[in-house]
Formats: sequence, C-alpha cells, structure tokens
Amino acid sequence: MRFLLSLFVSFLVTTTASMSFADPLPSWNAGDTKSAIISFVESVTDPASDSYVTPADRIAVFDNDGTLWAEQPIYFQIAFAVDQAKKMDPADLTSDALKAAAAGDVEGMLATGKSGLLEILAASHTGMSVTDFKASVEAWLKEARHPDTGRPYDQMIYQPMLELLRYLRDEGFATYIVSGGGIDFIRVLSPDAYGIPPKQVVGSSLVSEYIVAEGAPMLMKSPELFFNDDKAGKPVAINHHIGQRPIFAGGNSDGDFEMLEWTTSGDGPAFALYVHHTDADREYAYDREGHIGVLNRGLDEGPERGWVFADMAKDWAVIFPAQAQ
Amino acid sequence: MRFLLSLFVSFLVTTTASMSFADPLPSWNAGDTKSAIISFVESVTDPASDSYVTPADRIAVFDNDGTLWAEQPIYFQIAFAVDQAKKMDPADLTSDALKAAAAGDVEGMLATGKSGLLEILAASHTGMSVTDFKASVEAWLKEARHPDTGRPYDQMIYQPMLELLRYLRDEGFATYIVSGGGIDFIRVLSPDAYGIPPKQVVGSSLVSEYIVAEGAPMLMKSPELFFNDDKAGKPVAINHHIGQRPIFAGGNSDGDFEMLEWTTSGDGPAFALYVHHTDADREYAYDREGHIGVLNRGLDEGPERGWVFADMAKDWAVIFPAQAQ
Repeated sequence: MRFLLSLFVSFLVTTTASMSFADPLPSWNAGDTKSAIISFVESVTDPASDSYVTPADRIAVFDNDGTLWAEQPIYFQIAFAVDQAKKMDPADLTSDALKAAAAGDVEGMLATGKSGLLEILAASHTGMSVTDFKASVEAWLKEARHPDTGRPYDQMIYQPMLELLRYLRDEGFATYIVSGGGIDFIRVLSPDAYGIPPKQVVGSSLVSEYIVAEGAPMLMKSPELFFNDDKAGKPVAINHHIGQRPIFAGGNSDGDFEMLEWTTSGDGPAFALYVHHTDADREYAYDREGHIGVLNRGLDEGPERGWVFADMAKDWAVIFPAQAQ
Repeated sequence: MRFLLSLFVSFLVTTTASMSFADPLPSWNAGDTKSAIISFVESVTDPASDSYVTPADRIAVFDNDGTLWAEQPIYFQIAFAVDQAKKMDPADLTSDALKAAAAGDVEGMLATGKSGLLEILAASHTGMSVTDFKASVEAWLKEARHPDTGRPYDQMIYQPMLELLRYLRDEGFATYIVSGGGIDFIRVLSPDAYGIPPKQVVGSSLVSEYIVAEGAPMLMKSPELFFNDDKAGKPVAINHHIGQRPIFAGGNSDGDFEMLEWTTSGDGPAFALYVHHTDADREYAYDREGHIGVLNRGLDEGPERGWVFADMAKDWAVIFPAQAQ
C-alpha cells in the first residue's frame, strides 16, 4: 500500500501547487491598476460569474513597441536598419538617407523624411528571402546593444508585461502581438522574449513572393508595402489573423486607440490597458509630444471609456528583467 | 483504503484508455496510403526517432474545397452567392451576370466570365460588415441543400479527412485550413465542421475597413481584393499567418501544388497528401480537365516527389459522415 499512498500524496501535492495563491503579478505595485487587471481576469475565468468567457474566446492582444519593450530613442527596428546600413559597401550608399544611416547620423536620417526612412528599411529588409532576413535579425540581436542602457535589445522588455502575458496564458488566454512593427522582425524574438509563437504575431508586412530558384523554393521580400498594421489597420489585422474580437488589449500610443476601441466594443466583458510612460528615471517619460509613441486621444478619451492606465513610475516595481550576467 | 484503491483503478483505466491502440483512421481502408500517413505521424511524434519533431513545429495545412469538403458541381461559396442573388430586389439585378445568378442559370453565369463571377460575389460579400456577412452565411448553411445529395453543405465534408484532422491534433499537431475560398466564409463553418477555430483559417480576402458609425465600430467589407490565397499565394499566406513551414500539407488540385512543394522543401521530415477524386459513384471523378479542381502538374510530378495520393474510390471506406436525422 505504500505505493498507493505515495501516489495519492503526490496527487495532493500537485493539485495544491497548481491552486496556490501566489501573486501572479509580483512586479506590479499594489493599487487600482493591478487590482483592476486581477479582478477582470478572475471574473472572466470564474464559471459562476456572469462575466464568464469560455477559453476559446479569451483572446488578448498587445502592441509591441512601447508596450512590451521600449521604443526610445528610436524604434528598435530602425536601429537594426541603421546597423545594417553601417555594414553596407560604401559604393552602395547611393542616397543621403543611406549615407546618414551608415554614419549613424540619426538627425540627418530623420531629415530625409519618410521616403528616406523607407529607403533605409528597404536596404536591410528586402531583396532577400524571409529566412535570410530572419537570420540577419537574429545575428543583430546577439551583438547590438541599446545606446542608453548597454543591454541587448531583447532585454529591453518590460518585466511587469512579461508577468501579465504569463498570467493571462495561465488563465487560459491566447496572447497575441499586434504591432505596427514588421511581422518577420518580431517573430525572431517573440518566442524567447515573450513566450509568444510566430503564429501569434501580427504586424506590418511587405509583399513577399514565392519563387523557385534552381529547385529551391523561397519567399523573397520585396520593397512594396503589403499591410500597415497601425491605427485603424489593427482591428482589420485582428480580424484577418485571429477572426475573433479580443477581450483584452494593451497598447501605449494613439496608434493603438482603434485596437482598444474595437476590443471594448463587443457585447461581453473587455479590458483595455494603456502603458503610460511616466518614468524618466528608470525608463523614459513621454506622451503628448514627440515622434514616437504619441498619446493624445488615448489620454483624452481613455478614462471616460473605462480604460485602465499603467503609470510606469507608480504601478511598476521593476521595469526590465534582471540582466543576464 | 477502498477510496485509494478505487482512485488507483480509475487512474489505470484512464491511462489505458488514452493509450489504446484503436485505429485512428477507421474510414481509411488498409493499404499504402493509410500506412504512409500513420508511419509518418508515428515517426515525427516518437522522441526516440531521428525524425522527431517538437510539438511547436507540428503544423499541418489543408486546402478546403475538394480536400476537406466537396467542390462540385460548383464551389459552395459560389452556390451561396447565387442563393443570395435570388433574394435580391429585381431592380438591383443590373447586369447579365446578376440576372443569370438570380435565375439560377449557372451556364449563363459562367458565360459572363471572371468579371461576371466577381460581380456576383461582390453583391453577396460586400457593402456590409464582417459580422453581418457571417450571419448571412450562417443562415444560408441552415437552409441551403446540395443539388445532388440534398445534404446541408456543411455535411458535404469528408469523413476520412475529419479523422485525419483529429488524429493529427491528438498527436500534437496544429491543424490549419489554407484555402483559395474566402476567409470570412470558411470561418463560419470551420469550428463545428472541422474542429478548426477561426484563428487557424487562412483564405482569400477582400479589403475590409474599420469605421465607426454613430459610436459603433465595425469592419466593412469592400469589393477590392486584398489577397488571393491560391497557387504561389499559399506559401506566402502560410508565412504571413503562421510564420513557420508546415510539415504536413493536404490538397487536391494544382492550386495546392506550391503549398505541398513549400511544405516538403524544408530540412526535416514532411508529408504531402493529394486527395484524388476517383469515385464517380459515391462522389465525383475528375482531375485533368474541367474548371474546378484541375490536377495536372500534381499528377505528373507528385509521385516522383514522394507525395502520397489518397485514391478516394480505393482508400476511403466512407466518403461523407452519417447524415444527421
């Protein structure tokens, strides 16, 4: 009987462990924001609650830049493009934009406007296969360091948001990224950085073409824009990739407004979260002004819509994960 | 101790049931095709095998029309469009194509060519929200009957393929539809008919626009084509929606050739299945000729590429599920 007893004890231990009441969001300070998140998740996962949502309908969507990882002083995908330009043969630097990028002259680069930025992106993102592009992003993530913190870019992710993603998944949610950034770019880091598989990454994309070269099929990236996954494009992309309205959405800028609006316009319960960059000491403080992560309409209309704001300085005990040594 | 014993017995019973050696494909006749499928699945799921594939990489993709359900005498989505045209106000039948459709004159409809067909599709698919479109498909599925069998269209699905989908899922695969048909159309039936959730449906699509009308956000379907998920478009869509190369692909026509080619061009093990329509008695017999489901290149090149053919007459003991009474 000893075997049966030990089987039973191990059954009890396992069950108790999975029912433990450990804090699911240890890097969030106690307060209204944390309470609101936990209350929402508990209400939609409690079968006895009027707000109960079946697991198949527990879809959570998150912006990436400024929501799951930092986006200052420039979007990290632009930093990648600049670093690729630095490696180019000088003879191929045929424009002011490419020359500025190769010289690491961000001001000069921005001065060339949108067409200049697109040219820099095209040089690092197109004329190669998806496989080769992903390999170049992977190599870059290993060597590149953030200019202000010296961290690898994939450690510029927000610890409290990692906990939120895991908490939602533990409670039966499917977690998606819905980003204005490039879908092929984000997919390189999303599994390890966020625990989000490639199939749950939605983003902007270029046209890609299927070609067979000497018997080897490949997907070639062309410079033509296929889809801009920003603003009103986000609900469109959510329908295209997921086909269901989410019940949880997180963003940080007006580019996420429509995603939060769409998420909170269904018949059932829904939660919208804005990450508010208020912490100049530990991260960056910005909202209504600048060229990155501008948040105006969200600040004006969010509160009356019942959207919740995570004040980084106040609500987050920790910003980044402990740096790997 | 009686309680512990009964716990142990129920544990044994449960374990034995889940390890049972029941035939996973009862509607497939014994033979090379069935053996090849089972051998492949066993090899990629056996951790001791050189061909082992981790669950995260077990992606299976299937065409829909002619692969998971029938496609004769016309694509079912065209049948839907014709039935919608029949309900239109006669004053709105402003073209030969719409008049032919409303009269149920398929020959006359086809005579108006591609532009005529697109016009008929536009009338039933656009100028409404995605939500309203899905409701119209749902209503149609309840009332419409297949002209040759009298079955509801969502019972024109192939029992052996349902078993294959379930078998793959039981073995840790994620099963996707990758269809030339409309993504919003297929999503209405895929959860109940195939056990495939909306997020795992990839298809052709029209541009949709996010608008807010009197405070209510909606996604409006426009007539402009967004993506044609056929032929070389299928690997592109697979990358766009899934972001990983599948290891199992099933199709029935040359429109699926590139999907099977892409799937079988990776470094690891992969399986390509062509459903071959050979059964004029129980279903339809067609391949190299006609305007639907043409299979030429697949028949010519598939065998030398090691692709497996399901001969419907020979390999399938049953075609359709037992009809619900």
